[in-house]
Amino acid sequence: MSIITLLTDFGTDDEYVGLMKGVILSINPSATIVDLTHQIDSQDIVQAAFTIHSGYHYFPEGTVHLIVVDPGVGTERGLLALKLKNHFFIAPDNGVLTLLLNEKEISSLVLISNSSFFRAAVSRTFHGRDILAPVGAHVANGLDINELGPDIDVQNVVCLENLGARRIKNGEIRGQIVAIDHFGNLITNIDSELLTGSLHAGPEKKIQIKIRSNTINGLSETYGGVRSNTPLALIGSRGYLEIAINEGNAAQFLKAKKKDPVRVLV
Amino acid sequence: MSIITLLTDFGTDDEYVGLMKGVILSINPSATIVDLTHQIDSQDIVQAAFTIHSGYHYFPEGTVHLIVVDPGVGTERGLLALKLKNHFFIAPDNGVLTLLLNEKEISSLVLISNSSFFRAAVSRTFHGRDILAPVGAHVANGLDINELGPDIDVQNVVCLENLGARRIKNGEIRGQIVAIDHFGNLITNIDSELLTGSLHAGPEKKIQIKIRSNTINGLSETYGGVRSNTPLALIGSRGYLEIAINEGNAAQFLKAKKKDPVRVLV
Amino acid sequence: MSIITLLTDFGTDDEYVGLMKGVILSINPSATIVDLTHQIDSQDIVQAAFTIHSGYHYFPEGTVHLIVVDPGVGTERGLLALKLKNHFFIAPDNGVLTLLLNEKEISSLVLISNSSFFRAAVSRTFHGRDILAPVGAHVANGLDINELGPDIDVQNVVCLENLGARRIKNGEIRGQIVAIDHFGNLITNIDSELLTGSLHAGPEKKIQIKIRSNTINGLSETYGGVRSNTPLALIGSRGYLEIAINEGNAAQFLKAKKKDPVRVLV
Repeated sequence: MSIITLLTDFGTDDEYVGLMKGVILSINPSATIVDLTHQIDSQDIVQAAFTIHSGYHYFPEGTVHLIVVDPGVGTERGLLALKLKNHFFIAPDNGVLTLLLNEKEISSLVLISNSSFFRAAVSRTFHGRDILAPVGAHVANGLDINELGPDIDVQNVVCLENLGARRIKNGEIRGQIVAIDHFGNLITNIDSELLTGSLHAGPEKKIQIKIRSNTINGLSETYGGVRSNTPLALIGSRGYLEIAINEGNAAQFLKAKKKDPVRVLV
Repeated sequence: MSIITLLTDFGTDDEYVGLMKGVILSINPSATIVDLTHQIDSQDIVQAAFTIHSGYHYFPEGTVHLIVVDPGVGTERGLLALKLKNHFFIAPDNGVLTLLLNEKEISSLVLISNSSFFRAAVSRTFHGRDILAPVGAHVANGLDINELGPDIDVQNVVCLENLGARRIKNGEIRGQIVAIDHFGNLITNIDSELLTGSLHAGPEKKIQIKIRSNTINGLSETYGGVRSNTPLALIGSRGYLEIAINEGNAAQFLKAKKKDPVRVLV
Repeated sequence: MSIITLLTDFGTDDEYVGLMKGVILSINPSATIVDLTHQIDSQDIVQAAFTIHSGYHYFPEGTVHLIVVDPGVGTERGLLALKLKNHFFIAPDNGVLTLLLNEKEISSLVLISNSSFFRAAVSRTFHGRDILAPVGAHVANGLDINELGPDIDVQNVVCLENLGARRIKNGEIRGQIVAIDHFGNLITNIDSELLTGSLHAGPEKKIQIKIRSNTINGLSETYGGVRSNTPLALIGSRGYLEIAINEGNAAQFLKAKKKDPVRVLV
């Protein structure tokens, strides 16, 4: 039994994801392959970084996570294999692993170079199929990731700056929207720890959340915590501050988009 | 070998369905998980009720069906586990099981309360991941659903009224559109039994189907049974009256939408 | 261990694909089912023909491929089972297998007629669920496809004309767009063999690609091979000439659509 998750920006209109699965099953016929999502916005490394970081621990230890959000495919960018808390991550060296690398419990971090685990013919445009899928299948088969290439120091891989929200002097938190989900909920990069640690805030606390020209007072516990069609803020299931509309679509209602700033005031 | 189906309104843009699968596989690593569909219209309990009822019996006995169309998540609504014809259903107590409960061959019906089968931390907004997925995984592992909580009488669970179509005095049938599929076909709540029982109708019979300002004469046997771009009615693969356009999109052509009334006249 | 792929134009809005999986698992509970894609444009047999032909060989030998792009469902069109290079294909006799049949390494080609491998009740409108799924599950279980019906000569099945691109007298190649992917890349029917065989072209060679009113000079090796927002041509991961925009959407930028002609000049 081995589990491989796929996180890509390929969408599901095409056969690309299906071909990756074919390659995996050719090497590891008993793999259980799970689509984490293929709807990362095209080339959005930040969104992918939050998605894998907040999601991987729902899978059992030993799971292999393939992340194929890879604007630099075919260029000289490297490919990484990471072992962390007994999970495995195979991804381009483009910052998509930043939040995981910040966890500082790295067992191994390797620059993938051993082409004996690649497909025989590697296209210039589809490393997901020709490198990441076969490498992931071998790792799920038990291959030690140190067989994939030399160790690389975390200082030498690409990390994204300012991914997280930050607290400024007066206690205010400044973050931004990093994802908008199917329901139109706005997911921020303000995690519950920063929020509660900084403000000792609870549902009862009089904090204010500012987004565009709107002010939301206090945190709700559920989407149903306010009147219909009223904006609310809550700690979402990801563990991050989320802005929603009871029975509505917050992205449409607030005309909000990714990267819009979100501020939390004491 | 155990099979778990997922029926939700989550869409596939986000990682939510993937996380449910991670939770299931953490408990039941050999489960085969099938997406029935995640494109139930947001919070449309009626559409979900017809989908699970017309679909479950295509799966083998012993299958566990998780239904997460749950507008009331985080409120006091209950969660149910149902055993029926050797299939298992885990769902909110919001009426989504109505058509199944009408089958009156219930082996067990239980109000889920035993939190030892939930995830340790249960969010207020994502019971699909934190309760239904782990409970379903345990049931697929062989857990007796009576371990999940006390029996509940079918009289005491939420059932939807007037889900089905009905025959009125002159033999006319009054129903409505309950789903519109990818091809634009309009799926009604008028089942073939009601249609044939009431009208002794066949393809040769001169029944009329009224939808919006259109009248369709007689039933076709296939989508190709009329000229191109002509509306037709047939018993669809679900076993319900369906309105379609040969080589076209009936929803667009007829400007039809869900809940539009459909009448069948002798 | 047996693998079954699904290639359809059903989309994923509805439960149709899920029901096919239920039928397969009822017969072959240990099957691994892979969605190749369900987003073939409605009834586009040409797009499906290229997708299965360029994709099947990424799966291990013994895989069973179900192709349900079937405008003629319910009419007298036949259903075929093909064994080729130790892969199995189950599909309507409508030309979708044309490119595979051109490979001329056919082990068996059979007209499916033995209804003992169908579901007991066969609807007129959903043979994917009622015939192809159960037949495919039995083949994945090891059933000899000759049990499905009589041999049929390749001369007697429907084949599509002019699927491929062609070279005309002056060395010019004339092809067309057969698919547009999620990224807006335009995939042609001009394969790399025709291109290189005809033109001895390489990245360095001064060929010209004409699409609509645009001329692209030379082939790139990667999507990043030109300035941002500039059209480029390359041999895509399918092995066919592809037209793309670096960091952009070629379909939108060039206002291109399927069936648009593409010419390659020496």
